[in-house]
Amino acid sequence: MTRVPESIAGYAYGKLDVAASPVTVEDLERLKETVGFTSEDERYLRLAGGVLSGQTRAIVLLWRSQIIAHIPHLARHSRALDGSPLPDYLAASNLRFEQWILDTCLRAYDRPWLDYQHEIALRHTIAKKNRADGAPSTPFVPLRDIIAFVAVLNDTIRPYLAAREHSPADVEGMHRAWCRSVQLQLALWTGAYPKDEW
Amino acid sequence: MTRVPESIAGYAYGKLDVAASPVTVEDLERLKETVGFTSEDERYLRLAGGVLSGQTRAIVLLWRSQIIAHIPHLARHSRALDGSPLPDYLAASNLRFEQWILDTCLRAYDRPWLDYQHEIALRHTIAKKNRADGAPSTPFVPLRDIIAFVAVLNDTIRPYLAAREHSPADVEGMHRAWCRSVQLQLALWTGAYPKDEW
Repeated sequence: MTRVPESIAGYAYGKLDVAASPVTVEDLERLKETVGFTSEDERYLRLAGGVLSGQTRAIVLLWRSQIIAHIPHLARHSRALDGSPLPDYLAASNLRFEQWILDTCLRAYDRPWLDYQHEIALRHTIAKKNRADGAPSTPFVPLRDIIAFVAVLNDTIRPYLAAREHSPADVEGMHRAWCRSVQLQLALWTGAYPKDEW
Repeated sequence: MTRVPESIAGYAYGKLDVAASPVTVEDLERLKETVGFTSEDERYLRLAGGVLSGQTRAIVLLWRSQIIAHIPHLARHSRALDGSPLPDYLAASNLRFEQWILDTCLRAYDRPWLDYQHEIALRHTIAKKNRADGAPSTPFVPLRDIIAFVAVLNDTIRPYLAAREHSPADVEGMHRAWCRSVQLQLALWTGAYPKDEW
């Protein structure tokens, strides 16, 4: 199962209107070396994709409703500028967040993947935030909050990786591969961020 | 034990010639919220500081000699531009790397700590790399490699946290606190980086 539902509003993986990443495949190979990402991690991510599919809704609800919703300086990025809820925006971006979990685990890390990393980053910056949904929300998510929140993603995903009775060594391997991938993605996102949106 | 040796060349924590961070203590409090850093993490970091002191040399040797030394695009940042070794530069920066482990665990995260985070970042950029040691090395470490290498730091520190027979729950707690702190620091370092040194 590589898709959350068949169609997700604003999800444009591999589409022509996605930004082109300036990062080369050679840059990506060097970044993989830096982060220690190997073919074993690819195998573990495929395993993780199987484990997590079917759990993505619960995971994103945890992140968005149990954690982000209680941190005002994060919650506001899914709301209108006056703080009122934007349920359609939240619902659509939650589905894309779910799909991101599966894409992290199940996609090949190739040219279209690099381009979509760039697109994901831009969609948190003034260049593209709110556009896919026509949402009247905050103009950008500060990069520092994205970097910091990665620690929460990594920490809270672990019980879900352990939910299917794989061995502790396999859970450990899936989690290590996940953390490496997300840190690699974070490096790519940072490259797309304007300096003044830190 | 809050110091690796009594005196470390170029280590300037709390000194007047350290850069001033533009980040406010209020910004830091918000970042702590984003990363989920609590007083429990502070306690676990103190515990980790006790566990890791005495092991910092082995940890930094692992990072520098077993990992970085085998990745040419990382190893070059401790070498001369022609690739020849700079043993004094490497030794001094290794000691500061050791001290960073202890500072991560044992320092209060206050104004001087924020300033030293800024200083640490600048020392990887064109603004200040090589200066403390007068070393003829690469002009800067690309930010993306610092972000990606954090995954390696986090993954490889874990066995050292487990080396003193603390309970699995305490090892888990120490590791969670470590990862949160390093991701928080990474957010701060990113703010100090020029856009074109990504």
